[in-house]
Amino acid sequence: MPLVVQKYGGSSVSDADALKRVARRIVETRRAGNDVVVAVSAMGDTTDELIDLANAVSTDPAPREMDILLTAGERISMALLAMAIREMGVGAQAFTGPQAGVITTEHHGRARIIDVAPGRLQKAVEDGDVAIVAGFQGLHPDTQDVTTLGRGGSDTTAVALAAALGADVCEIYTDVDGVFTADPRIVPSARKLDRVSYDEMLDLAASGAKVLMPRCVEYARRFDVPIHVRSSFSGLEGTWVTGDTDEGDEMEDPIIAGVAHDRSEAKITVIGVPDVPGSAARLFEAVARADVNIDMIVQNVSAIVTGVTDISFTLPAESIPRATSAIEADRDAIGYAELRTDDTIGKISLIGAGMRSNSGVSAKFFAALRDAGVNIEMISTSDIRISVVTRSETLDDAVRAVHTAFELDSTDGEAVVYGGSGR
Amino acid sequence: MPLVVQKYGGSSVSDADALKRVARRIVETRRAGNDVVVAVSAMGDTTDELIDLANAVSTDPAPREMDILLTAGERISMALLAMAIREMGVGAQAFTGPQAGVITTEHHGRARIIDVAPGRLQKAVEDGDVAIVAGFQGLHPDTQDVTTLGRGGSDTTAVALAAALGADVCEIYTDVDGVFTADPRIVPSARKLDRVSYDEMLDLAASGAKVLMPRCVEYARRFDVPIHVRSSFSGLEGTWVTGDTDEGDEMEDPIIAGVAHDRSEAKITVIGVPDVPGSAARLFEAVARADVNIDMIVQNVSAIVTGVTDISFTLPAESIPRATSAIEADRDAIGYAELRTDDTIGKISLIGAGMRSNSGVSAKFFAALRDAGVNIEMISTSDIRISVVTRSETLDDAVRAVHTAFELDSTDGEAVVYGGSGR
Repeated sequence: MPLVVQKYGGSSVSDADALKRVARRIVETRRAGNDVVVAVSAMGDTTDELIDLANAVSTDPAPREMDILLTAGERISMALLAMAIREMGVGAQAFTGPQAGVITTEHHGRARIIDVAPGRLQKAVEDGDVAIVAGFQGLHPDTQDVTTLGRGGSDTTAVALAAALGADVCEIYTDVDGVFTADPRIVPSARKLDRVSYDEMLDLAASGAKVLMPRCVEYARRFDVPIHVRSSFSGLEGTWVTGDTDEGDEMEDPIIAGVAHDRSEAKITVIGVPDVPGSAARLFEAVARADVNIDMIVQNVSAIVTGVTDISFTLPAESIPRATSAIEADRDAIGYAELRTDDTIGKISLIGAGMRSNSGVSAKFFAALRDAGVNIEMISTSDIRISVVTRSETLDDAVRAVHTAFELDSTDGEAVVYGGSGR
Repeated sequence: MPLVVQKYGGSSVSDADALKRVARRIVETRRAGNDVVVAVSAMGDTTDELIDLANAVSTDPAPREMDILLTAGERISMALLAMAIREMGVGAQAFTGPQAGVITTEHHGRARIIDVAPGRLQKAVEDGDVAIVAGFQGLHPDTQDVTTLGRGGSDTTAVALAAALGADVCEIYTDVDGVFTADPRIVPSARKLDRVSYDEMLDLAASGAKVLMPRCVEYARRFDVPIHVRSSFSGLEGTWVTGDTDEGDEMEDPIIAGVAHDRSEAKITVIGVPDVPGSAARLFEAVARADVNIDMIVQNVSAIVTGVTDISFTLPAESIPRATSAIEADRDAIGYAELRTDDTIGKISLIGAGMRSNSGVSAKFFAALRDAGVNIEMISTSDIRISVVTRSETLDDAVRAVHTAFELDSTDGEAVVYGGSGR
């Protein structure tokens, strides 16, 4: 019997009626002849409400207790979902992350899944029951304490369960119809992608597409788990994220998967850094000690006369205080003149596996930005992505211009850009 | 260092401010030189809200999933309480029932504590931290599933922890100042008892006093754990429940501990039961199969002419449907003529260890009821208790009359009934 792992997010289980709607979909999947294992998030805004409570009693909640607190959210949704499914005549058993055998690292609030020991889930499925698993949580075996996985944790739970159980597909149910060529709120003509490769999805996610988190896609790529991103409301076919999309193999593969944007980053510029070996190392060692993730880095060509240079890098905006404190603490060692921060930047990225074998993509990208009057502050590229940093207020125009330039706009049935055509 | 176990109920931790108030009290206890272990209930109405959610998705929620659901409530309160304590500069660690080593039977929703393996709590206390434990829950070791203890569960958790840790006292914090000679809402002149014996407290609790559940007192008596029932709001000395109160030993011990009442019971009368050996057995076997707890039983003196009799018994009002179905199913075997139910009864009980050695208590009790015009329908006695069933609407008058007759009314400093005085 095929095994389907499904994941439902908080917006899909926001109240009792929503829970019943999700239960009905699970029951239909089971009755269609599938074994079903489900990962579920906390209901609606439960997690945010719990965080508010923690902040009401503590200025610096202990990570271990924060995880105990937050995992109450999935405990509620998983128990209710199992009850709702049974009410419809299908057997169901609910399991916490620890009970489901989700083993993690010890990092409370941002644990990583090390392993899944799915014995209890397999037993439940063999008994003919649907297994409901609390997403976002696991057990650190040394401490026997519950951990949470941080952002995107429930998606990662679902993919990890699918990998451990050898599932045929991991269906990620969300409140949108799938992965789009751009954010439809900015580009109304954005199209839903029927499929996208792990690599492309990784770059889309890392560049700001919110539908999946990079860690979940990484996990799926590593264990070759096919993901089907779809809406819990419409029932339509969504977007398949798989390993077999390769631009060279089939004429139908598009060169460009989509345009992503990200307004959550900020820029730090360190002015007047001595242009000698080791300056950059000292700077980024300080930043690393502050546990800050850096995205793009640009170093100016040094002015030979002065012997100093400027280094700019981007980072999550919320990390600015941590990063600046760390740099200022090492000011003497780094020897810079001035530190500037800028949280009004935006990043636009063009992603597509077809870039590897199609020239002219960069030229077309920069031309589109120029024609839209968008100024470029930083550039970074990989073999399947081009990203630029611009002013936040010009970001929407940039996204629309690039989306149109690459003929990604929906044309109601007309053919779109495919490999070999284009440029 | 003395070890204090404290228990805080839902009304003491109803919101963030209440949690902080409780945290402050715990911190004060710790700073006064005590090791502290705390059992905490779910916040305010959390448990009821979770039950409402379960009923919204299911007509018959599975007991295992119901327990997973309900235990989310203590998970939230225990984590927040630990955070609030740390915020005040005292170390605190939170533990679920399973983590705290609370081992129970398998009966979901009404599990009994079998054992407590307090290793993690001892470690936390040795580390100088306050240990916060989720009340009301434990682990059934065979299934590795969480269980709940049912009504009074958090009090029982606290007493069980105190017993396992060899605590010096188990403080039960509640929203009243202690155990009273009667319910102050009915008898405004009721006095707070300074101390009461386990046996008296057991009978008070079994007779309707709500401040402690019988199971908690039974546990305390078995392991000789001194309980101190006190208010989480006033900080006043409350009522000590201990084993060393014995009416004969000290002149100061009062004969009567208090007057309890109970309006939650109903009466079933089975009319025309053959007065032959085995009739009562068949009747109560049927009731036992329906898992109904019976309180009082009265069998009429048989009319010799007819050879049939009537049997009345009291039971929790909510058990009426289960009990009547069970009796009706066995109608032929029992051979009765008619079944009558009555849910408008009330029970008043007079409790005091001094009854054992003081005659005239019963006479005074019945005289007080007669003078108040209260009709008696059923009577039951133990060595330290007299209970009668009356009409529900006369119950308040009955309680006040008996309370006054035994000179239990507060006299603002005047001496009250002590052993040897009275009658």
